Amino acid sequence: DFLAIDGEFSGISDGPSVSALTNGFDTPEERYQKLKKHSMDFLLFQFGLCTFKYDHAEEKYIMKSFNFYIFPKPFNRSSPDVKFVCQSSSIDFLANQGFDFNKVFRNGIPYLNQEEERQLREQYDEKRSQANGAGSLSYISPNATKCPVSIPEDQKKFIDKVVEQIEDFLKNEENESLELEPCTGSVSKIKERYIVISKVNEEERKRREQQKQAKEQEELNDAVGFSRVVHAIANSGKLVIGHNMLLDVMHTIHQFYCPLPDVSISVQMMLLDTKLMASTQPFKEIINNTSLAELEKRLKEVPFSPPKVESAEGFPSYDTASEQLHEAGYDAYITGLCFISMANFLGSFLSPPKNHVSARSKLIEPFFNKLFLMRVMDIPYLNLEGPDLQPKRDHVLHVTFPKEWKTSDLYQLFSAFGNIQVSWIDDTSAFVSLSQPEQVQIAVNTSRYAESYRIQTYAEYVEKKHEEKQAKRKCTEDSWKEMERKRLKTQCTPYVSQSRYYCVNSFTGTSTLGKRSMSPIQEETGSDDMEEGDVQDLECDPTDSCAESLPDGKKRAKKFKKIKKEQVPAGSLTSSSTEIFEVPETW
Amino acid sequence: DFLAIDGEFSGISDGPSVSALTNGFDTPEERYQKLKKHSMDFLLFQFGLCTFKYDHAEEKYIMKSFNFYIFPKPFNRSSPDVKFVCQSSSIDFLANQGFDFNKVFRNGIPYLNQEEERQLREQYDEKRSQANGAGSLSYISPNATKCPVSIPEDQKKFIDKVVEQIEDFLKNEENESLELEPCTGSVSKIKERYIVISKVNEEERKRREQQKQAKEQEELNDAVGFSRVVHAIANSGKLVIGHNMLLDVMHTIHQFYCPLPDVSISVQMMLLDTKLMASTQPFKEIINNTSLAELEKRLKEVPFSPPKVESAEGFPSYDTASEQLHEAGYDAYITGLCFISMANFLGSFLSPPKNHVSARSKLIEPFFNKLFLMRVMDIPYLNLEGPDLQPKRDHVLHVTFPKEWKTSDLYQLFSAFGNIQVSWIDDTSAFVSLSQPEQVQIAVNTSRYAESYRIQTYAEYVEKKHEEKQAKRKCTEDSWKEMERKRLKTQCTPYVSQSRYYCVNSFTGTSTLGKRSMSPIQEETGSDDMEEGDVQDLECDPTDSCAESLPDGKKRAKKFKKIKKEQVPAGSLTSSSTEIFEVPETW
Repeated sequence: DFLAIDGEFSGISDGPSVSALTNGFDTPEERYQKLKKHSMDFLLFQFGLCTFKYDHAEEKYIMKSFNFYIFPKPFNRSSPDVKFVCQSSSIDFLANQGFDFNKVFRNGIPYLNQEEERQLREQYDEKRSQANGAGSLSYISPNATKCPVSIPEDQKKFIDKVVEQIEDFLKNEENESLELEPCTGSVSKIKERYIVISKVNEEERKRREQQKQAKEQEELNDAVGFSRVVHAIANSGKLVIGHNMLLDVMHTIHQFYCPLPDVSISVQMMLLDTKLMASTQPFKEIINNTSLAELEKRLKEVPFSPPKVESAEGFPSYDTASEQLHEAGYDAYITGLCFISMANFLGSFLSPPKNHVSARSKLIEPFFNKLFLMRVMDIPYLNLEGPDLQPKRDHVLHVTFPKEWKTSDLYQLFSAFGNIQVSWIDDTSAFVSLSQPEQVQIAVNTSRYAESYRIQTYAEYVEKKHEEKQAKRKCTEDSWKEMERKRLKTQCTPYVSQSRYYCVNSFTGTSTLGKRSMSPIQEETGSDDMEEGDVQDLECDPTDSCAESLPDGKKRAKKFKKIKKEQVPAGSLTSSSTEIFEVPETW
Repeated sequence: DFLAIDGEFSGISDGPSVSALTNGFDTPEERYQKLKKHSMDFLLFQFGLCTFKYDHAEEKYIMKSFNFYIFPKPFNRSSPDVKFVCQSSSIDFLANQGFDFNKVFRNGIPYLNQEEERQLREQYDEKRSQANGAGSLSYISPNATKCPVSIPEDQKKFIDKVVEQIEDFLKNEENESLELEPCTGSVSKIKERYIVISKVNEEERKRREQQKQAKEQEELNDAVGFSRVVHAIANSGKLVIGHNMLLDVMHTIHQFYCPLPDVSISVQMMLLDTKLMASTQPFKEIINNTSLAELEKRLKEVPFSPPKVESAEGFPSYDTASEQLHEAGYDAYITGLCFISMANFLGSFLSPPKNHVSARSKLIEPFFNKLFLMRVMDIPYLNLEGPDLQPKRDHVLHVTFPKEWKTSDLYQLFSAFGNIQVSWIDDTSAFVSLSQPEQVQIAVNTSRYAESYRIQTYAEYVEKKHEEKQAKRKCTEDSWKEMERKRLKTQCTPYVSQSRYYCVNSFTGTSTLGKRSMSPIQEETGSDDMEEGDVQDLECDPTDSCAESLPDGKKRAKKFKKIKKEQVPAGSLTSSSTEIFEVPETW
């Protein structure tokens, strides 16, 4: 019914400290760009996946959990030799959790991004077409000069003998194969190797050819490795949930699809962030701490009820009493539990109330594709499906000052304005939010003739920054164009191979500014029957390149619709809950 | 008698491929700068050390081997959060050797470089002087505002009661200690913690103070961690050998001392590179393959003899028959074996011949502090003790061409000149060496009007590069000065703490251009008695800051001299060997 994921990384930030990386007044775009710049050189080296399937008869979820260890083991001599960064504090943190680094580095599953996969596929195709196309000339090694080789005097006798042997072999119909004498030292130093010539009929030749191709395909699949699992997740049409999942999503795209676009990402699948969900009405008021461990504990108590979840047969079960946090599979499992508890809680607002709310329910749609933004004061989420929220920041000042200044200096400077809040940008600048927007202009005016520091309104700061960007862009237009050209060259492009369909648009970055807009939830239509409609969303738009990859998914979805109609009684939302379920526009 | 070392790294090159990193016509300075730029972001995470001591009575070496796993575990919240790069191919290589990554990341020994150690020491000193100097004000928390705190209404009663209790306690001479009531929830949420006030006399106070200081010193030692082992090696005065050890030496300085200087390194200790030794007369002619594994095999056969080496009691022994290459301790051990075999072989040229040649023998001095340069055609080593060799490169051309060109295009371009050798610099340039220096000018002249490519002599290329450097330096003089200022700020500075002496000049980089010059070996003086003289070199110059760190070393050295005089018979070198032992000026 839905999937939960979690990733463990070799580090978080290769530049500023995490607190500088997460300024309270970052815009979603700025935050995305900071993470892209400072977090993508780390390796996502453990991927936790948990599948949840609801058993209607038993009224419980059946769960399967997986821990994938990931390592970009070079496939062959020409394959990319990936370098990744490790951050001591992150590694030490995982070490303290008992993380098994040997499993990563010795037995990790390799992967390729789409461009690397394309190149490898091309290599194989080229090799094959060379072998097939050569026809009667197939005895010429690839890349060899086409002109005849002159045989050195001292080897002529040996070669003549070989030629004679082969001619005899071809004449004589009885012999099936011929072993040539090992070459002498001057021809080859490896004396244990020799050539065997075999006669094969057309049938046998084809069989061998097919065998070889099957082996190549297997090699290729092994090289694409874990990326195949990620493609399967993205193409499943299932809701994919994570806790505080922005970095997970960015790493997943970066590592298994293509380099991240400059401005923003969008996905053609359904993601749900349980941290955002827990920070939003109606949960916000009754949940104090949204960290995964605390959230899991809270959701076992009233008004929530712990979900009924069992491991599938043959799968290990996790015990939430003995914490195993930060094994990715366990975190994914806990994330799943949290989602189920919160989703079911929403059912209590229905009339009549429902104990079970499925991942396909319209009740949870308001949370789709909105990823939690850590420590941003007034923008709760990065919106993957429409323009980001534009909070009023008319009480915020941007202040520049000498690098010797400390927070206390800022408190002193603004002592006349009562309570203030400081958000450091770097050594010499910070945002300062005042309690009253009216004070902003006073502060700016008072500072007009100050020499050591400079104050501007947030609006002026944004304006100036935009102008600078424009100017910079003009200045370096040539180099920009060059970069753009290169970027486009390496961008992921959709393609269809003969053996498999790819849905490159799911779980993939796009570099366009305009994102698919989602109409805001106007009103809950009040019938659980709308879950029929939900299923539509699970299927891709038929005009979409992704459509063909889901033939089974469509069938399954239709079947599911039928079951739902039979089982689920109609119910209507109370009018008060209509407002409750809207994700607020500002925090 | 001597130490052998070997390091394992998390990677080799974060930039160009190793083949581009090691151009056949690099100058030693260029090579050093390339390695500094592209190899220092990796972690030296296993350090192998082998100590060798000769037992004169038993005529064998006693060996102790160590494998240190190294990891920059953050010491506290303010300590550096080191980021390091991993290269998949290197990690995969080590994984295939059974390398235990968990030992590194879970149990690795931490370390600090000199600047970090200095800062930490300063922190401790500051804390201590704060505690001592505060005297009667010591009840004020550090960093707290100095003005009295106003007590909230609802807590006044509680505070009054505490004050009363303390006053009673001070008056009453019988009570030794007083337990204060736990704070109420509004003051502190951690209800299990409470304050105990104890009376102590001056003696007890001092004892506690000393206990605290001892504990702090222990913490500090633990934080400096493996750097202490490296300091001990550098200050031991022993010959330190390694195989192809340039990267080991650079990583050791970078990780445990200070950032590498821009131009070159110099050390005030004795290093010997067995790969350089094996590549030099009299070994060059009889050793084909100088890779460590092959060298070890070759040196077991005539004219060499396998050395007699035994593990010390309680130390594990290595079996050279079952290869365990690339555990650092094993590689250090093998390096030691190779050194002993080669050193002893030099003894066969003495008259009378000697079976045992010590690490202090003048016979091996020509190899001191010359580090092997991988794949440089005409400069065998980087000289740590004098100007580098200046090979004639009058048969070498520098060629620039379109990036589509391949090696075959260069062969075609120079087809008129017979055999050539191509050394790629990057996509669009390469060195091409001709067999005859006379052809160089012809090639340059012929190319004068060529449009797609450009040929210049090596001398012209060097000249132009030098000019460009000068111009660039002028252009950015201001930013240069700024950088220089910053560099000087973070440079390692000698200091003497009260508890330990540091020999900061050993095993340490300097950024001066002029390096200490070594007079070339003019003639072997022909007597093994000169080994007395050798010992002088083991001691530091008394004017040197390092001198004081070796009081024991001096004594030991003098004792050793005496033993030598008694045991070693005089012998004289044959005149032919005089030339043989000189390290050639060019390859």
